[in-house]
Amino acid sequence: MRSTWILAAALGLAGVAATAADTADAPRGASYTEDGKLRRPDNYREWIYLSSGLDMNYRERPMGMNHSMFDNVFVEPSAYRAFLETGTWPDRTILVMEVRGASNKGSINKSGQFQTAGLMGMEAHVKDSARFPGGWAFFAFDDADAAAPLPQEAACYACHREHGAVDTTFVQFYPTLLGLAQQKKTLSAAYLADEAKAKEGAPPDTH
Amino acid sequence: MRSTWILAAALGLAGVAATAADTADAPRGASYTEDGKLRRPDNYREWIYLSSGLDMNYRERPMGMNHSMFDNVFVEPSAYRAFLETGTWPDRTILVMEVRGASNKGSINKSGQFQTAGLMGMEAHVKDSARFPGGWAFFAFDDADAAAPLPQEAACYACHREHGAVDTTFVQFYPTLLGLAQQKKTLSAAYLADEAKAKEGAPPDTH
Repeated sequence: MRSTWILAAALGLAGVAATAADTADAPRGASYTEDGKLRRPDNYREWIYLSSGLDMNYRERPMGMNHSMFDNVFVEPSAYRAFLETGTWPDRTILVMEVRGASNKGSINKSGQFQTAGLMGMEAHVKDSARFPGGWAFFAFDDADAAAPLPQEAACYACHREHGAVDTTFVQFYPTLLGLAQQKKTLSAAYLADEAKAKEGAPPDTH
Repeated sequence: MRSTWILAAALGLAGVAATAADTADAPRGASYTEDGKLRRPDNYREWIYLSSGLDMNYRERPMGMNHSMFDNVFVEPSAYRAFLETGTWPDRTILVMEVRGASNKGSINKSGQFQTAGLMGMEAHVKDSARFPGGWAFFAFDDADAAAPLPQEAACYACHREHGAVDTTFVQFYPTLLGLAQQKKTLSAAYLADEAKAKEGAPPDTH
């Protein structure tokens, strides 16, 4: 409830009924074409920011890139508010990861990396238990206005299921949410097993 | 106007009067103690995300750090909406930069950097022409609940004034806003001079 009011106040909407924002049927950002493609969410940069990484890689072999990339993760605000209360994602959650170019040369920057206007990719991870087997689906947008779900056999599904800290998502990399999931005891058995293994010196196994 | 509706819809508040959000006197996040200290904005992670950098450095000499840090920049939503319309910041804009630890070891990550729960700093940059000489002030919060403005002689003021792309802010590092400022022709003379010099092979001079 607190977060609802913070958001409403930040938008200058303090005074409108908070219950409107709490309605379970409120739109949550995911919209589909008639043939089941997810329409590209064009306003995700105005959602809640979760975290960024630079050149993150889950596999032992290097990616062999000759350039650096940032990834930025955003979540649609009503799902974020639900996570603050419950420590997990409600049905119809939508997360977006965008990939941006990284540069160390530009303006007055002398070292380190900053993000560039070059958008190198955009993906969505959507929870909809009525729509997807396993409850979640991934979508990769290039320049497309809509994208079909990636097949459930794609590696991302197994990796998120086997290593995601909360409900197949990588909350272990979202610094403001991990502690909340710990408090609310919503960490997945798979993640807890990975962490227990890591304590014994054996890093989690990825393919 | 469009962005107002997008935000309202994202919050499930579609249908409330958009004019409420457009009121010039709407709260903008900055709140001061009686002795003129800025109160720490505790909800900035729910504002609009602008960009992140890793180990960015504006000086020739290396910072000599033995660790990596991300910085994340957020702006209070009503200022963001004004920027979308005008290409510059309205009075009472508040930007926050947080500094977070970077790690390459954790969970299934094998290389690259991700952000950690360790908050290593938090600063605000606030526009208030009635309150600050020059129109803007910087505030550095450690764990404090409130911070006095940094003195106008601090290096950050001169550097932002001499190199900031828009109204003493580093919009050149905010990938979704730079193009807008170019379109709206709000780029500062100082930034345009830096860019002209850079084209001739002479990088901007910083102290």
